[in-house]
Formats: sequence, C-alpha cells, structure tokens
Amino acid sequence: MENPARITGVLSPVVTPFRRDLTPDPERLAGHCRWLLSNNVGLAVFGTNSEANSLAVDEKIELLDALVSGGIDPARMMPGTGACALPDTVRLTAHAVKQNCAGVLMLPPFYYKGVSDEGLFRNFAEVIERVGDSRLRIYLYNIPPVSQVAISVALIERLLTAYPGVIAGAKDSSGDWENTKAYLDNFAADGFDVFPGSESFLLQGLRSGGAGCISATANVNPAAIAGLCAAWQSDDADAQQQRLNVVRGIFASYPMIPALKAGIAHHGGDSSWHTVRPPLVALTEVQRTSLIGELEGAGFTMQGLA
Amino acid sequence: MENPARITGVLSPVVTPFRRDLTPDPERLAGHCRWLLSNNVGLAVFGTNSEANSLAVDEKIELLDALVSGGIDPARMMPGTGACALPDTVRLTAHAVKQNCAGVLMLPPFYYKGVSDEGLFRNFAEVIERVGDSRLRIYLYNIPPVSQVAISVALIERLLTAYPGVIAGAKDSSGDWENTKAYLDNFAADGFDVFPGSESFLLQGLRSGGAGCISATANVNPAAIAGLCAAWQSDDADAQQQRLNVVRGIFASYPMIPALKAGIAHHGGDSSWHTVRPPLVALTEVQRTSLIGELEGAGFTMQGLA
Repeated sequence: MENPARITGVLSPVVTPFRRDLTPDPERLAGHCRWLLSNNVGLAVFGTNSEANSLAVDEKIELLDALVSGGIDPARMMPGTGACALPDTVRLTAHAVKQNCAGVLMLPPFYYKGVSDEGLFRNFAEVIERVGDSRLRIYLYNIPPVSQVAISVALIERLLTAYPGVIAGAKDSSGDWENTKAYLDNFAADGFDVFPGSESFLLQGLRSGGAGCISATANVNPAAIAGLCAAWQSDDADAQQQRLNVVRGIFASYPMIPALKAGIAHHGGDSSWHTVRPPLVALTEVQRTSLIGELEGAGFTMQGLA
Repeated sequence: MENPARITGVLSPVVTPFRRDLTPDPERLAGHCRWLLSNNVGLAVFGTNSEANSLAVDEKIELLDALVSGGIDPARMMPGTGACALPDTVRLTAHAVKQNCAGVLMLPPFYYKGVSDEGLFRNFAEVIERVGDSRLRIYLYNIPPVSQVAISVALIERLLTAYPGVIAGAKDSSGDWENTKAYLDNFAADGFDVFPGSESFLLQGLRSGGAGCISATANVNPAAIAGLCAAWQSDDADAQQQRLNVVRGIFASYPMIPALKAGIAHHGGDSSWHTVRPPLVALTEVQRTSLIGELEGAGFTMQGLA
C-alpha cells in the first residue's frame, strides 16, 4: 500500500440491476453500493461483471450522477471507462474526473485484434491529453480472456514514463499469476498499484506488494474478502484464503454474472435482480436451485443485504 | 440474386477519412462513396474496415445524415449498426431505417465471449422489436476472427423462423468457405442473401447462389470486382478472379485498413487519407513505398479517383 492517498484494498465490479424493460435501476444500484461500502469494499462500477459494455455511455453517465447525488462517496469509486471508440472513452473518463472519482479502470479498445503496443500507447495518450485534467488516475485493465487485447509490461513501462502521475496501477484479470507477478515485480515498488482480478490471488498478491483485488465475487462475499485484505499478515490468513476459494469456486462453476445476480436475488429477497441484458442469459430455475443449495451447504450468507 | 428489390452485388466497407485532429471528414467520405458508386459498388459504410467501432454512435449518425443530405442514394447503403450495447444498436439501426437505407449489417454484441445462441437470439430479437419498423432489413455479420463471436447456422434458422421478413441475409467474413457454403446451402434458395466477406470467394459464392460480396479491397479495386460480379458466367471469369486475387494479396500482406488508406492517399494525391484512429497505426514510409511499388508492378490503377 505505497499510496495511502489512493484507493486500495478490495473493490467490486458492481453488478448492474435492470428493470423488466432492461433499463438500469439507479436506486437498486445505489442500495447495493451502500451494502458493499458498509462491508469495506470499494466500487469498481462499470466493470466486466457490471455488464458495462452492454450499457450506452449516456446510461453510464446517468448512473454515475445518480450514485454521487445519492450520497455515494466518489473517493470510493473506480468506474470502468474504456470503450472501443476514443470519443466514448474520453467522454466517460472526463465525467468521472469531474465527479471526483478516485480513479478510472480503463480497458484498451477491444474490437480490433492483434493491434500493436504503439497503437495502444497512442490510444491511452490521446485519452490522457484530451481529458487534460491533473486529477486523472488511470488503472489499466488487462483481461485478455474477454477483451482479447493484452496490456504488456513494455506498454505499461512506456505509459509510466510518459505519464507518471496519471498511470496509477492496473487490474490484472489474465488469470495468470505469472503475468500479475511481472506487473508487481516491475512496477509495484514505484507505487504502481496492482490489483489481481480475483480474490483467488488476494493473499499471494498482497505478499508480493499488491494493492488488494478487484473481484466479481466481492459483490456477494465482501466482508470475508475485505477481512482477509485487512488481516493478511495474521496467522490464519491461509485458512481465510481457503474459505474464500470455496465460495469463489461455487459461483465460478456457473455463468458468473447471472450467478452473482441469482445470489443477490435470493439473499436480498428481490427476484428482479435476476434480469440481465442480452447477450447474457439469466440462470434457469434448475441452476438457481443448485447454486443456492451449494452455497447453503458451504454455510454462505450475505448479512445485512436488503 | 433471388431478391431483385434488395441490395445485391459488390459492396465496400467504406474506409472513413479523418482530419488531423482525428475527427471524421464527411466531405471526403462522400467523395469516396461517389467514386465507389460510379464503379458499381454499394456502400457498406461503418464496417470493420471503416473503423466503425472506433466511432461514437453520434459520429456515425452525423456521417450518415451528411451522406444522405449530400445526395448519396440510401438504396445503395448498408450501414453497419451492431454494437456491444443494445441501446446503441437500436439507436443507429432505427436511424438507418429512418434514412431509408437498403439494409443494415449487424455485428453481434462482441465484448462477452462464449455467449449462447439463446443470448444472441434475444439480442437480435430485442433490436427488431425495439426498432419496430417493417422496412428493417438485417444482414447478420459473421466475423469471428475479429468479433470472436460466431453466428451459427442454428441461430440464423431460428431468427429466420421468428422474423422472416426482417432477416435478409448475412456477410460471412469467417474466411472459411465451408461456413459460407453452409449458409448458402441452408438458406440461399429461400432468398437469404449471402455475401462472402472477400472477393477471393466472389466467383465461388456466385456459383453456389451467393448475392455478391462485401470486401475491404472493393475500396480500392471496385471496377474490377464489380466487373466479375456482372460477368461471372462469362468464359474468362476464372481469369478475372485470378487477377482480383493478385491485387487482394498485395493489400492483405500489409495491415489492411492502413494499406487501403495508403492506396487511396497515393492514387488520389491526398496524403490526409493516411490518418487512422488508435489503436490502428498508419503504414510507415517504408511500408508505403513497398506497397505502392508492388501495386505498380502488378499494373494496378485507381481510375478517376479524386
């Protein structure tokens, strides 16, 4: 935790609730955000697990404004702002800075494949120059299993040299510890905050100079994940990590986003949470019953939800 | 050519000219469209080779309006309208219908990978229901090498059953003739218009009931490609196809979009055409010289450009 003034610890890519007509519901989103904050989990709204790329830029701006005006602290927020089109990334990023968000989590443009580090550098450089605000803090978002566009160590190095005050860290959802370790070994000592993209790597990451984690399952298991992050130097840290892995494993054996929503629907007693936008599909009744049964078998609860 | 009232033949995913500040230039775009039309090539504006996913929806709407108000015939246009976010796809598609475009070329939502046919069906169904206009004609855009989300024969079958008047055809940029042939064999006889995504498959496609092709290199070699499409039953059709393949091969040995722009910049005497948006990068001087030399060696020209 090299940067006490920065956002660190555990963050959740907050799932986005939809109404029956598939419009996002800012009130239910704010409610879930408050529950996460009360469990010491920060808000990486508009992440992959938020179905952020299934939302128009205008919808994201409206949701962000609703959260801030609803009293959610922007210092606890790291909205996802990276899109395929430069003007979309610039617009949402500038808005997040204007709303005093702690930072932004930025995907590379992900439509074209096999693009060069030179092209990716120019993309991030254009965003930074066009936003033109010294408050901007960018966390690079590496998730090649989904985006299919990787953020290399060489690219990070070049960006850090050009924009040392702006490039603040990275979320690594490669699922490849060797890649996370390369980010940590090369840049963590200089204050570059590395967040593994799953709590499976939380303890390993913290022991190697990581800043916390940003994880899908922090949507449903926030207290335990934040608990390990706070107590990672305690004697039972490895036992805590094992318990986190059990819950993670149950959710990860279903399509993740619909499974998170099914967990929240069940434990919060609000079936409208099941709704997802296409191309995703909600869990079937059979899947829901199976998931909830497995979670009960593991003694899983979501205290204080709704 | 089962549907004389529909758009068929050769179309080009029209490259998008940018100004030095990376804003799109509607005047130069209209000029290139007129040249393509004068060579009997239709306008699949906002395709992959148009850098369409590097443009915001508002930019595409403004460009489309500028083309139509500039006198470009919408009956010769098949704009790309598929985006990751349902509201973006609906908005641009509805606008294209309002502008009386012949059809729209629709990518599936391409951020999430490994999505189900059920989820993709719901996406296209929602778009069709929300646009709610009987004039809508959708051409499904299969380009798994880039989008990483394939459009299966089973999905097409289900969509055709549910929306027989709306689902008009497909562009297949899989690069896999067996896939194109499966589309043709299953659906062409019923009036589903299949366009291979490259003129490499033009003759083969036409001989199997295809509707033409939609090809990147139709941006630079329109007359010859449209010529073969018109004369595919003539004695020298195979020889024509061979000549098309030579030119295609030269462009395809460079990054395609920058190479198309370099060809237009050289032959049109307008170096501003080199500009691309990140994450793409323009050809280097060495690449440009090499490309132009190879094209000259093959006797390639772009008559009447600029």
